Amino acid sequence: MFKAKLNDLIGKKNSLLCVGLDSDPDKIPRILHRDPEPLLKFNQKIIEATAEYAVAYKLNLAFYEVLGSAGWTLLEKTLQWIPADAVTIADAKRGDIGNTARKYAETFFQTYNFDAVTLSPYLGFDSIQPFLEFSEKCSFVICLTSNPGSTDFQYLAVGNQPLYQAVARKVRHWSRHSGNLGLVIGATRGQDIRTVRETAPDLPFLIPGIGAQGGNLREAVLFGTDAEGKNSLINISRSIIYAASDSGFAEAAARMAAQYRQEINQYREEKLGLKK
Amino acid sequence: MFKAKLNDLIGKKNSLLCVGLDSDPDKIPRILHRDPEPLLKFNQKIIEATAEYAVAYKLNLAFYEVLGSAGWTLLEKTLQWIPADAVTIADAKRGDIGNTARKYAETFFQTYNFDAVTLSPYLGFDSIQPFLEFSEKCSFVICLTSNPGSTDFQYLAVGNQPLYQAVARKVRHWSRHSGNLGLVIGATRGQDIRTVRETAPDLPFLIPGIGAQGGNLREAVLFGTDAEGKNSLINISRSIIYAASDSGFAEAAARMAAQYRQEINQYREEKLGLKK
Repeated sequence: MFKAKLNDLIGKKNSLLCVGLDSDPDKIPRILHRDPEPLLKFNQKIIEATAEYAVAYKLNLAFYEVLGSAGWTLLEKTLQWIPADAVTIADAKRGDIGNTARKYAETFFQTYNFDAVTLSPYLGFDSIQPFLEFSEKCSFVICLTSNPGSTDFQYLAVGNQPLYQAVARKVRHWSRHSGNLGLVIGATRGQDIRTVRETAPDLPFLIPGIGAQGGNLREAVLFGTDAEGKNSLINISRSIIYAASDSGFAEAAARMAAQYRQEINQYREEKLGLKK
Repeated sequence: MFKAKLNDLIGKKNSLLCVGLDSDPDKIPRILHRDPEPLLKFNQKIIEATAEYAVAYKLNLAFYEVLGSAGWTLLEKTLQWIPADAVTIADAKRGDIGNTARKYAETFFQTYNFDAVTLSPYLGFDSIQPFLEFSEKCSFVICLTSNPGSTDFQYLAVGNQPLYQAVARKVRHWSRHSGNLGLVIGATRGQDIRTVRETAPDLPFLIPGIGAQGGNLREAVLFGTDAEGKNSLINISRSIIYAASDSGFAEAAARMAAQYRQEINQYREEKLGLKK
């Protein structure tokens, strides 16, 4: 089971850190452009440098697709560099009807063998169902996002609750039998993370939005983790992978990853201390 | 502008037909497996056979992604076979925040140069905005789908309207300045298509769900088209492309495409006749 594996890794590596590989040819150190495969070299160096601190790597599919078929080859090769003691997440935000959803499930869980994927909720249960059949994998359904546009639909009142709460409730309900669903919750929404955690106490959370997007790390950890300070992944992308743009970029990424892990653990200790 | 181009083609070819290239190695005629590139040969033959009747081709991305990087090469090569007098739609249903959405917009509108794309609404305006900047292109936002799970969220009451109506209103509002948004509405929802057309009288509709999914073609045409019986695309995938599984598959696809165009036009005439 993904959830057990994740929490086992969180314990062993004492970390909630997920490193987001939003690798962009315009942003990687210029020195790498001498390499025949600059983005692969970049990903490899970032993974090696952060492997000690990260329990997960999230590949943002947009950054790979934009490169055409070469991007998918890059994706395949990058996955080979991710060590076995970290979970891999395809940040794909897919959502389509039955037979198409099945193809997407096969894409991410078979063709590329990711451990987890992100999905959009709008099309409902049968757009999620084919992913549930992969019992060892996990699907993180988008619940609440950190962008300004999240107010357009996610906060609309559905009865006495906002839509994102209705999504959290449904996803938790769907997860009862299969136990392999999680939620994506943006870190900019501190108090709302707390509400979602109350609604779905047992679901793994994937929490992006720290760093460039301005999310509050302390609130994300205090409110996002479960009662044991686990079952959540805090994703950080740009602040780690682009920590430096010179030849020392990998060491800079390692320092930032170590620093984030430490800060996250400090809030976990604060949370567990508060409980006593 | 996409909308002007589309309606011009609809007039010239006297057709609303969009052929969905949901090309699946397990479903194409076995005879093609002798070809070095069976799926490309299949797509090429289907396009050639249906080009007279179709104003659009929709490529369902899931069917290409599942093949790995080879699938993206297939996508590129397939696009080259689509004639200039048909629009191309990437049925991708993407939806992500700002900087990632921009990468997806570049993927479909620059890397692959599609005329249109399908998007998910859940993340709100800034997930759509980067696509709007491509003024000659069109983004069809998912409004109402034909699958059973559409009731999970799309029909939830938001004030005095279902969520899908709130989506239709917002998308129409966003489209006021740019004029390059459309809506995806499943054909199984006859009366609801009418309501959405009333809400968004000027937006192009992409209407899937005919054939294998059991949508009502007459209602889709009567309620989906605008006052001139235009501004809509009726997508048909499996009933056309898998019309036969022997060596006559292309001719069978052509016959089905001709038949669907005729049936669609019959309902368009009925609609325009009713107006007199």
